[in-house]
Amino acid sequence: MLGLMQDWPLLIHRIIDHAAAVHGPRRIVSRSVEGPIHTTDYRGLRGRALKVAQQLERDGIGLGDRVATLAWNTWRHVEAWYGIAGLGAVYHTVNPRLYPDQIAWIVNHAADRVMLADLTFVPLLESLAARLPTIERYVILTDATHMPATALKNAVAYEDWIAEVDGDFEWRIFDENTAAGMCYTSGTTGNPKGVLYSHRSNVLHAMSAMAPNVLDISAQDTVMPVVPLFHANCWSMAFSAPMAGATLVLPGPKLDGASVHGMLNDHQVTMTAGVPTVWMALLAHLDAIGGRLPHLKRIVIGGSACPRAMVEAFRHRYGVEVVHAWGMTEMSPLGSTSRLMPEHAGLGRETELDVLARQGQPPFTVEMKITDDGGRELPWDGRTFGRLKVRGPCVTRAYFAEGKEAIDAEGFFDTGDVATMDALGSMQVTDRSKDVIKSGGEWISSIELENLAVSHPQVAEAAVIAVPHPKWGERPLLIVVLKAGESPSRDDILAFMRGKVANWWLPDDVVAIEEIPHTATGKIQKTTLRDRFRDYMLPNATAMAG
Amino acid sequence: MLGLMQDWPLLIHRIIDHAAAVHGPRRIVSRSVEGPIHTTDYRGLRGRALKVAQQLERDGIGLGDRVATLAWNTWRHVEAWYGIAGLGAVYHTVNPRLYPDQIAWIVNHAADRVMLADLTFVPLLESLAARLPTIERYVILTDATHMPATALKNAVAYEDWIAEVDGDFEWRIFDENTAAGMCYTSGTTGNPKGVLYSHRSNVLHAMSAMAPNVLDISAQDTVMPVVPLFHANCWSMAFSAPMAGATLVLPGPKLDGASVHGMLNDHQVTMTAGVPTVWMALLAHLDAIGGRLPHLKRIVIGGSACPRAMVEAFRHRYGVEVVHAWGMTEMSPLGSTSRLMPEHAGLGRETELDVLARQGQPPFTVEMKITDDGGRELPWDGRTFGRLKVRGPCVTRAYFAEGKEAIDAEGFFDTGDVATMDALGSMQVTDRSKDVIKSGGEWISSIELENLAVSHPQVAEAAVIAVPHPKWGERPLLIVVLKAGESPSRDDILAFMRGKVANWWLPDDVVAIEEIPHTATGKIQKTTLRDRFRDYMLPNATAMAG
Repeated sequence: MLGLMQDWPLLIHRIIDHAAAVHGPRRIVSRSVEGPIHTTDYRGLRGRALKVAQQLERDGIGLGDRVATLAWNTWRHVEAWYGIAGLGAVYHTVNPRLYPDQIAWIVNHAADRVMLADLTFVPLLESLAARLPTIERYVILTDATHMPATALKNAVAYEDWIAEVDGDFEWRIFDENTAAGMCYTSGTTGNPKGVLYSHRSNVLHAMSAMAPNVLDISAQDTVMPVVPLFHANCWSMAFSAPMAGATLVLPGPKLDGASVHGMLNDHQVTMTAGVPTVWMALLAHLDAIGGRLPHLKRIVIGGSACPRAMVEAFRHRYGVEVVHAWGMTEMSPLGSTSRLMPEHAGLGRETELDVLARQGQPPFTVEMKITDDGGRELPWDGRTFGRLKVRGPCVTRAYFAEGKEAIDAEGFFDTGDVATMDALGSMQVTDRSKDVIKSGGEWISSIELENLAVSHPQVAEAAVIAVPHPKWGERPLLIVVLKAGESPSRDDILAFMRGKVANWWLPDDVVAIEEIPHTATGKIQKTTLRDRFRDYMLPNATAMAG
Repeated sequence: MLGLMQDWPLLIHRIIDHAAAVHGPRRIVSRSVEGPIHTTDYRGLRGRALKVAQQLERDGIGLGDRVATLAWNTWRHVEAWYGIAGLGAVYHTVNPRLYPDQIAWIVNHAADRVMLADLTFVPLLESLAARLPTIERYVILTDATHMPATALKNAVAYEDWIAEVDGDFEWRIFDENTAAGMCYTSGTTGNPKGVLYSHRSNVLHAMSAMAPNVLDISAQDTVMPVVPLFHANCWSMAFSAPMAGATLVLPGPKLDGASVHGMLNDHQVTMTAGVPTVWMALLAHLDAIGGRLPHLKRIVIGGSACPRAMVEAFRHRYGVEVVHAWGMTEMSPLGSTSRLMPEHAGLGRETELDVLARQGQPPFTVEMKITDDGGRELPWDGRTFGRLKVRGPCVTRAYFAEGKEAIDAEGFFDTGDVATMDALGSMQVTDRSKDVIKSGGEWISSIELENLAVSHPQVAEAAVIAVPHPKWGERPLLIVVLKAGESPSRDDILAFMRGKVANWWLPDDVVAIEEIPHTATGKIQKTTLRDRFRDYMLPNATAMAG
């Protein structure tokens, strides 16, 4: 027997309709790419989003067509998302920080038909255009005054383009599982993979994100997403902020410490979110000028692990609550947030910082489990670590045009992370599963060993990789870059580490090299190290073989 | 093209699974019907809910079967909901405050197969049992020690009943639109109508309710629903509190001012919710003993209009934020909440109270419109009032076993209320549509005239009804009960009202009677008054006819 409630598909356009109807005059303040501050409101943004949809339809775009965006966080980018999705087309955010070859590969793989791009990226697109045959038209997100002369195909200034229609348009209605958005992940190996969000997943994700345990967004908040719209669906804020009726502040292209500080204070931002590097720059700026954050209440930090010292700095030096978040493009992306629970009351400042530095608890709509390689579930004891697997309505089941499922028989997606879970369901990432060292059936965290090694006063950087071992399968090899002028011995370093981890975790050898290789985004390139040290003979392995 | 996100149906059991996994040790404190305080946690509650499902299945209950509950707010009632719904059966909350005849009618109409009832209601059920042929078994929500001798069919103590199984049970998986819960509305006319919630509607409603703009429930909250589980789905709290991981306090059968005050303070409740009469009793108790509310942060007041003076008392005398809420059983039930918006900043205390006394703004998932009798939409200007119509995934489209849709061609449900909407989407109920007076094509609010009339110092109670008029169609007749010993004239009363409403709103006549008839729930029985004054000849109608 079915319930007798209304059939009301979860469609993205309903978010902006709600914002315009109930929170119509709430402001959207942007740093424009052209320079000045621009202000509109939800009613205005909805009106222009309707024009985007109407004009795209005139240009022949329809259900399922991909429309690329290569743009900073501004009102034009947000209204374009709503316009594209409200037509049943798919907004495809392209990350301008990728290598040009990757951008070309992604646009071709997605078969994008229209490209909406900021002025910033016109030169890049001009250099790539010959390799982007699927793009029928380039819409430059500016007005006639700022429109550059360009040979890009059918190039038009966005403001001229939407001025051609009157906005008398009705959102299209379709199945809530219809594709709405697309974002490619750029793994360290292989080609990027396209994640394809649906209207349902984006709406559910935004509802989940609004909740007090997650981003905690209300109509009384002023929200500034520093994380770009092209970074993993902007952590929901282009949807959850309008859904809540929050005032929205969009920082445009200027993400340096001084600019971010200026936007936070000038527009009385109460909540912001971004990756640790942005906040490192903000902290450096605040320290340099003796700046304060009088309006900011909380800051969501994710994208990569937030150092405990950063939690401490914002919390105790600036009086700003830190919400450490973890997620993946494949998870829409919010997977967990770290918040103090009632059980933590009275445990004191240091324990609180430890709790807040964990990746935290999944919201409702995210199920987590940790398993061993055989898929057996492991206990949530805060110590045992295993492959982190997730399930939920906002989690990927397959990648675009791969033609195969990316989930296991129980419907779980393997995150590629290795993590512990504690009794309160708080998760801590301990490693990437491809980096963990499997020694005699037990796992050793490369990250924990690296963190320990770099705390040695003479070590500048450290990487731990697995090397083959005849008895244990794999054993850890510690690779270090020494600080200038220092030359500690192998035994010095191992003696420093001894007693701070289980003895069987201690690396079997230490090698000092000149430079550790990094990826474009600053991560250690362990694949290169593994190739280089593939045939490395560990001392005790030799002894045993001899 | 469809998105590529996981198929994860929105099922109620996922809420308690989430609470047990992530918020396992969070407490659930109940005032038991037997008397003492009982404490469990989400992990414990889930374990027992699984036993309920397992035992119901052993008793032959399955998908779509209705299981009635006649019970107060305790842990047993909440775990029974999850157990029933987790099997795919339907929890049917029966309101014990209805007349016995209505209870029998409802149970028979729903064809309930099992009845779970508190000790309180055993005598009532014994008197009704002969008229409840569909009930196969009575489960009394108590243990063996407190189990009364009773001839109720297959009667068993709940604790004995669930002790027969081991809890090794897996929740059933089914379509998210499957029926999950049922609640009858008791209109002032005709038979009660059954609202049939789905798993999807209850899960979406709880997600919506958790949001900061609505009930604002987090894991740091201690939530006490004073509103009964049998009152309109308990305003979502049996779902939204576990979804958020809030500590839950359940007041059991004792809802007097002193008991509510004790539970609020003893268990450090931060958020509570209920109807105005409960809070009137609490205020009287606080006044009498000079009591305080040191832990309570906010109080959600709904079910009937919250007087402005009550908002003021909690806000300014006790430092407790008031969230005025409006809804309907047919809306799951939350339809709107009144909160201060950024645009209200600096308008001062009196304006804030005016804003908070409105019924407030719909959350995302509720669409509202106001229309005239012809269905034309009316402006949101804060003055024009029209029929309030709603649409959304948690709104009824049809009643149980009626075999017809209860919505219009655009999918809107007519609430039966007449309301204004302001430019911020804040709604204010001005009347019931059957009570509004239609004078020459314009509408006059009976409620506004009644409120004005009772502010006359010699008037004890007032009711305004429409009486037929040859020229205007209808005109208002004011019916009053005078205070003891007072005898103001018709003209005195009209003179008092003049200038405080538009002149054409003024009642055409005033009649004093001994007593105004009321319904069981204390509302004025206007149907009776309309019958009594059907042929009443208004003085000016006579004049015009003459």
